[in-house]
Amino acid sequence: MEGRRFFRFSLILFSVALVLFFVWANLPHAPPHPAVLLDCASDASWCFSSTYRPRKQPPRTVITNSRPGKTADRSDHASDTPRHPLDPLTVQEINRVRTSILTHNLFADSSAPYALHSISLDEPDKALVLRWRKGNPLPPRRASVVARVSGRFRVLTVDIGSGVVEVVDDEVPASGYPTMTIEDMKSASWAPFSDAKFNSTVEGRGVKLSDTACLPLSTGWYGAAEEGMRLIKVQCFSTEGTANFYMRPIEGLTVLVDLDTMRVVDFVDKGPTIPIPKAANTDYRFSLVDVNQQLNLINPISIEQPKGPSFVVEDGHTVKWANWEFHLKADARAGVVVSQARVRDPETGEMRPVMYKGFTSELFVPYMDPTDAWYFKTYMDAGEYGFGLQAMPLDPLNDCPRNAYFMDGVFTAADGTPYVRSNMICIYESYAGDIGWRHMESPITGMEIREARPKVTLVVRMAASVANYDYIVDWEFQTDGLIRLKVGLSGILMIKGTPYSNLNDVPGQEDLHGTILSENVIGVIHDHYVTFYLDMDIDGSDNSFIKVGMKKEQTSPGESPRRSYLKAVRNVARTEKEAQVKLKVYDPSEFHVINPNKKTRVGNPVGYKIVPAGTAASLLDLDDPPQKRGAFTNNQIWVTPYNRSEQWAGGLFVYQSQGEDTLAVWSERDRPIENKDIVVWYTLGFHHIPCQEDFPIMPTVSASFDLKPVNFFESNPILRIPPNFEKDLPVCKPAASA
Amino acid sequence: MEGRRFFRFSLILFSVALVLFFVWANLPHAPPHPAVLLDCASDASWCFSSTYRPRKQPPRTVITNSRPGKTADRSDHASDTPRHPLDPLTVQEINRVRTSILTHNLFADSSAPYALHSISLDEPDKALVLRWRKGNPLPPRRASVVARVSGRFRVLTVDIGSGVVEVVDDEVPASGYPTMTIEDMKSASWAPFSDAKFNSTVEGRGVKLSDTACLPLSTGWYGAAEEGMRLIKVQCFSTEGTANFYMRPIEGLTVLVDLDTMRVVDFVDKGPTIPIPKAANTDYRFSLVDVNQQLNLINPISIEQPKGPSFVVEDGHTVKWANWEFHLKADARAGVVVSQARVRDPETGEMRPVMYKGFTSELFVPYMDPTDAWYFKTYMDAGEYGFGLQAMPLDPLNDCPRNAYFMDGVFTAADGTPYVRSNMICIYESYAGDIGWRHMESPITGMEIREARPKVTLVVRMAASVANYDYIVDWEFQTDGLIRLKVGLSGILMIKGTPYSNLNDVPGQEDLHGTILSENVIGVIHDHYVTFYLDMDIDGSDNSFIKVGMKKEQTSPGESPRRSYLKAVRNVARTEKEAQVKLKVYDPSEFHVINPNKKTRVGNPVGYKIVPAGTAASLLDLDDPPQKRGAFTNNQIWVTPYNRSEQWAGGLFVYQSQGEDTLAVWSERDRPIENKDIVVWYTLGFHHIPCQEDFPIMPTVSASFDLKPVNFFESNPILRIPPNFEKDLPVCKPAASA
Repeated sequence: MEGRRFFRFSLILFSVALVLFFVWANLPHAPPHPAVLLDCASDASWCFSSTYRPRKQPPRTVITNSRPGKTADRSDHASDTPRHPLDPLTVQEINRVRTSILTHNLFADSSAPYALHSISLDEPDKALVLRWRKGNPLPPRRASVVARVSGRFRVLTVDIGSGVVEVVDDEVPASGYPTMTIEDMKSASWAPFSDAKFNSTVEGRGVKLSDTACLPLSTGWYGAAEEGMRLIKVQCFSTEGTANFYMRPIEGLTVLVDLDTMRVVDFVDKGPTIPIPKAANTDYRFSLVDVNQQLNLINPISIEQPKGPSFVVEDGHTVKWANWEFHLKADARAGVVVSQARVRDPETGEMRPVMYKGFTSELFVPYMDPTDAWYFKTYMDAGEYGFGLQAMPLDPLNDCPRNAYFMDGVFTAADGTPYVRSNMICIYESYAGDIGWRHMESPITGMEIREARPKVTLVVRMAASVANYDYIVDWEFQTDGLIRLKVGLSGILMIKGTPYSNLNDVPGQEDLHGTILSENVIGVIHDHYVTFYLDMDIDGSDNSFIKVGMKKEQTSPGESPRRSYLKAVRNVARTEKEAQVKLKVYDPSEFHVINPNKKTRVGNPVGYKIVPAGTAASLLDLDDPPQKRGAFTNNQIWVTPYNRSEQWAGGLFVYQSQGEDTLAVWSERDRPIENKDIVVWYTLGFHHIPCQEDFPIMPTVSASFDLKPVNFFESNPILRIPPNFEKDLPVCKPAASA
Repeated sequence: MEGRRFFRFSLILFSVALVLFFVWANLPHAPPHPAVLLDCASDASWCFSSTYRPRKQPPRTVITNSRPGKTADRSDHASDTPRHPLDPLTVQEINRVRTSILTHNLFADSSAPYALHSISLDEPDKALVLRWRKGNPLPPRRASVVARVSGRFRVLTVDIGSGVVEVVDDEVPASGYPTMTIEDMKSASWAPFSDAKFNSTVEGRGVKLSDTACLPLSTGWYGAAEEGMRLIKVQCFSTEGTANFYMRPIEGLTVLVDLDTMRVVDFVDKGPTIPIPKAANTDYRFSLVDVNQQLNLINPISIEQPKGPSFVVEDGHTVKWANWEFHLKADARAGVVVSQARVRDPETGEMRPVMYKGFTSELFVPYMDPTDAWYFKTYMDAGEYGFGLQAMPLDPLNDCPRNAYFMDGVFTAADGTPYVRSNMICIYESYAGDIGWRHMESPITGMEIREARPKVTLVVRMAASVANYDYIVDWEFQTDGLIRLKVGLSGILMIKGTPYSNLNDVPGQEDLHGTILSENVIGVIHDHYVTFYLDMDIDGSDNSFIKVGMKKEQTSPGESPRRSYLKAVRNVARTEKEAQVKLKVYDPSEFHVINPNKKTRVGNPVGYKIVPAGTAASLLDLDDPPQKRGAFTNNQIWVTPYNRSEQWAGGLFVYQSQGEDTLAVWSERDRPIENKDIVVWYTLGFHHIPCQEDFPIMPTVSASFDLKPVNFFESNPILRIPPNFEKDLPVCKPAASA
């Protein structure tokens, strides 16, 4: 029809115009824009730079079911000031940094394009931070900036006080590019619409351009052909009839885009005969599904603390709860950063250091399909997309319980303008009905003793939505000194279109690379690896890593009626290679980080142990390009000497990196680590063979590992916690409406 | 002093008299005692037969901090009647069985000693139970009885209606003895006091007899010397100055006792020079420790459901919650038995079978010290002590949250008298603040979607205190169809006395077999294995076991820029040996129980998968006597064809068994298991190297594994659950006192 054709035509025009506008928009001209704070309502799931105009989307309902989250400060953070050496950059500081940067002569050429990929706190030296006490003046505030200017990537540091900018290009890695900006991702997702061939192909597949949504998929690195250019692959979906467009891929259609120019470089359609899967039963929004009455039988249930939470957040970032104290902040790349975690000794009352800094350093998500539209899907979500940039505001009653407190993040757009990601982190006390410790005397002794204590913990949570997938990261602190790091996977599968609608139609020999989840829908097999950076400081910085092997001992003839038993054999790792650990069920060890300079009353070195779980390991070839880049997953545990430049397991610049700046490379130096300031790296792994229960959205799957005191305390630190008494518990009645 | 010596003398006399009395007491004379129900107050931590008088104990405070638990029926259960074919024997039925047994001519000889080691429901054939519908008459009620009469063990079945007793001695295993009676354990723990040498040795070690408490420790089996006699080893502790006498062993003193005559057979003291560890800081009772104010900072917190729980318990044993329904009962040997677990299909509304029966079949707890006083400590807590017999009443506010419902157990004393173990099981809904599923759209797509759902589960809990150790067993049911089986370890370590009070005093070569936890106290290394019986019935009884291996595939040259990927390879286990699984981190598999006769809409066989965790494996020699008896831990997963006589992984008679009736032996028959009624066995394992935090009582350590739907549902079964809304949540205020 006339109207239809005209609409398409104008849409194409619009798209082309948009992209051209973009190329211009991303190259602001000096003088820089006046410093502004982007306007981001607490419900806005994303923010954008003032130079950016979003593409029109079909109107969609916002679902929140929630009161606004309680945060320390509902203001726009414009007046925040740093109070701790590790506090993240404030809005004012970011604006100052931006001004300093944009007036630096690197940026003098007003026609030179630029983008600021990251502006983050350049943390003071560890020694300075450790010496600092509340009330002292802060060490000089410095920012680290990654900028693209005149087509070149630079690493800059800015002294915020003096405004002095220093170029530290020696920190620019040999290969790879920095984390994409949100604007990179957005622009890339529309770039294909400037390509007439793409548009006609999409329509040829039966999808209206106005129903087409595209995703920017990092390309990884697969050899020379892809070097020297910042590239991204874009694949598209039909949004017709569902918000869950991920279930409706235009399979096989892949557009290669130059991220700097946003030009389409290459274009393939390997799936012309593959139908677009149906929209029916794919939407998951509460407003659209009729609630299943049979599941709606659960009476209201909630964690209640009518006297309020037991923790405080001092100066915006210092969390104090029960016997714990730590510094907490949002980070654009890592998501959540926990620093200076200290636990109170129940005997001396002193706050004892446990961990200087911990965060999710990198993720690695290889899909297991070598075909054209899939082989490159080997994501590194922190370094490529920004794990924190993708962390959306949490839903106060459903992502976190009602007793939660919320913390915002302050990030920057590509032009350096700060914006607030509200309710990005929640903190709450959890009680699941579990038991902290218990003992009852049995009929055998007949002593009438019944002692049990409830287990209450403190949870710090963030959730990142990297396109389809949702990662829930929990830091759980226990009063017994244990820290549990838990990662939950939910969200939506990255699925593959297929001509098959039933497994019976598939020829016996054909490998689907996954499971048929619905008609024409395959859930492709993939792994998830989440690598944590854990700078342990057990009662001080100088620690050692001990493998406590459990070895089978044979008794000698006549020694005992027993023929065998397990013996604990302690081995100190002297160098990095001795601390590279591949877990084995039948060759078990404990992994202790101890302070060799401090012993308990009875002579045990004080320590914490890493208690592994979620042990799925990567089985890819070590020389497979993605595994080279994800080489930090070659072992489940690594230990390196502290080095402030070694924080990102995949390297500082991960995007299209070739793997020469990874944890695996650093560790090969085999530096001494005994009685030194050491960093432990642990990788949580998941193998995921999708099943129909994952369609159209996945019930959360979790795995966790623990940092657990081992002879750190002289005795059970919660021996003296009180039990619950009826008289102390809240008095509740049903909600008025209920 | 005169008085002191006289006191000792009379105590010895008293003890001797007591034991003689006992031998008599345990041999009641026909006619049997009139049927009685033992009087067990709901707070009594144990019950005893009417023929038993407890030894005087120094008075001790009873600590409960709790209102009486809510149970379906606070009565004495005297009027209970069975309403489901799997309901446990009622008080009336037990009394009827007892009468039938004691009038049988086996028991005619009034001078013949007897003891009834167990009286339990002889479950009707599975086919009958599956056919039964509510309202139908119950299949004939039968009891299975293990009796010791005239020094011989007999297995009897009793038709409760007719009172006909059948002797089925073919079920008596070649070796081993049945689970001890509580009276066995009690009597054994005093038997040593009849031995003057023992008494003088104890006093020689500086412990008053009146301060001496002894434990009955199963001997295991270590060859011919120990055959033909029912033996037990008894070790003792000083109760002076602490309720936690486990921390004050009279190390090295071991008394071998004949369990039938209660005579001391042998006696060794290998520890005359080892001091009794001090009592200071070992007590854990709330009444005695001053609460640590620094930990007492947690405001009251509780799971609240002002509209009440969402589940019902019908006819005393059928639990219905959300989309789940199952039969639940207490068992003297297994603890908790879950039967006929069925989940509702959200599309058809039908209740679909998942598991016919599941329970903790056996435990195996080998200590890792080959020396005289320790080598034999290789406990099998279910078959030797009775996992249910040792399950004490739960503390309503501290073992289970306030919203819990409690279920009693009905067990029998050695003379066949029934008694009630009240509040033995609790059932409650848990909400920890976790997320059932979520997705938010990211800045990349810019669609404003925020959907999250809270995760609420149903927990069934029991806690067994096998002397020092406490095992918390949770069955957790999730609305997404997942069943989590969790075992928590708490309670008190079995510790070893040592001359050393500091690690520095220990010669480098000496192996302590554990960790110095306090002056003169070693926590000995040990393992825990908990083996679950899981009779899976996925949509019917005929199922198959599939190993879905994740194999590395190499791409052929030129096929793809990728060199490798993972491929899922399905292998059906045709026979038992093909289903013996040792887990390997670097050779991963999924383990599916499927119904090959039923497929989903898109052609996947419906199934559940066993998701392993807590994978510690036994490393003892396969031909080490304890490992022969505990051979059911040789693999983590086994699958056997259903056989009603194969329920106890260590055999029917485990005590002093020689290992010829274990799961490992059955599995060696290598019977076909494809498309058959199959039973899956999973062993949760723990290696425990004690640390000072475990002293004097252990913070709970947990591990769990999952039974998870895999293509069982057509799609996410909780897609349609509603989110939380503020308006539905309870309104709470602090307790009056707070």
